[in-house]
Amino acid sequence: MIATLEIATRGQGLYEITDRVQAVVHDQPAENGLATVFVQHTSASLIIQENADPSARRDLEQWLNRLVPEKDSLYSHTTEGPDDMPAHIKAILTSTSIGIPIIEGMLALGTWQGLYLWEHRRAPHRRRVVVHLGFN
Amino acid sequence: MIATLEIATRGQGLYEITDRVQAVVHDQPAENGLATVFVQHTSASLIIQENADPSARRDLEQWLNRLVPEKDSLYSHTTEGPDDMPAHIKAILTSTSIGIPIIEGMLALGTWQGLYLWEHRRAPHRRRVVVHLGFN
Amino acid sequence: MIATLEIATRGQGLYEITDRVQAVVHDQPAENGLATVFVQHTSASLIIQENADPSARRDLEQWLNRLVPEKDSLYSHTTEGPDDMPAHIKAILTSTSIGIPIIEGMLALGTWQGLYLWEHRRAPHRRRVVVHLGFN
Repeated sequence: MIATLEIATRGQGLYEITDRVQAVVHDQPAENGLATVFVQHTSASLIIQENADPSARRDLEQWLNRLVPEKDSLYSHTTEGPDDMPAHIKAILTSTSIGIPIIEGMLALGTWQGLYLWEHRRAPHRRRVVVHLGFN
Repeated sequence: MIATLEIATRGQGLYEITDRVQAVVHDQPAENGLATVFVQHTSASLIIQENADPSARRDLEQWLNRLVPEKDSLYSHTTEGPDDMPAHIKAILTSTSIGIPIIEGMLALGTWQGLYLWEHRRAPHRRRVVVHLGFN
Repeated sequence: MIATLEIATRGQGLYEITDRVQAVVHDQPAENGLATVFVQHTSASLIIQENADPSARRDLEQWLNRLVPEKDSLYSHTTEGPDDMPAHIKAILTSTSIGIPIIEGMLALGTWQGLYLWEHRRAPHRRRVVVHLGFN
């Protein structure tokens, strides 16, 4: 079973999508399985991270911005703006797809885990996330 | 089919779990399928790496420790200790879940591949790893 | 259903394998499912990246080469050549396996997404990529 979610972003940052994906799982009758979450873009990505203290996510964003800054003289791919090439690099350092087991109808996340779409572009975007559910 | 493994760690480092996951696969009658391994934490992660020469794993650990040091003035998320924020960053640079095909009842790893839990915290922890097996 | 592809590389670089994997999917009668692509090596990896402008891929390669250079005094694992330890590090920063949903018999990639094998060694290699298809 496959569902496509559209996530509206308001520029760079982490957007929690745990509840959106859990809602897709919840609509299915089966109990145990696997959810595979896939983002259809190369300048946004997925991570699972701490959902408790927002300071952890702020530090993550700032650390990655420092590792992959804009205005790096190495970049030749600059026609789509100064934030485009850093976005591609950040995407390959994180994840395009994540598989999450489903136990008794719930994503089997740990206590402090949340699933996030990471928008790497400065401008707002509409991002498509495909969720595949396999039950067997 | 889903199994949960508990892995006891003794502080930072790579802990091979290939045999633990293979044992779960071995208990199933089906032959071909997919194992998805998922760690339920945000300060430990998974990688597949060379299982032959231990020096490769030592270099990996030292390289990542240098890229993501403790005592970085960027960090504001410090209440859980100086090794906590680096642990979160190391986790997102590696993997929370890995899918491994199963061929004839065996994880289809390459000759030199081993599956490792990477503990990023200094203190010993008990880490939960969920294994989903799909056969079809 | 499982297929194994052999990819001949001519040294470091990104090799698009989208069509090779799509051909495996195309041979199956089922319509919706999940393709999991797995590379059986620790010095090559997988990424999904922009398949339009080649300059994005060139910048990616140069950026990662700068982050993980050869001749780093940190490395002790050097017996297999100066490009071996950087290859292992680059592999863990990218992906060993990627799950891609299948919709109506097609890999559900975004408009600008391509699937690439990233060869991290300087010498040509024959790389094995295992594709698991699950339909349900």
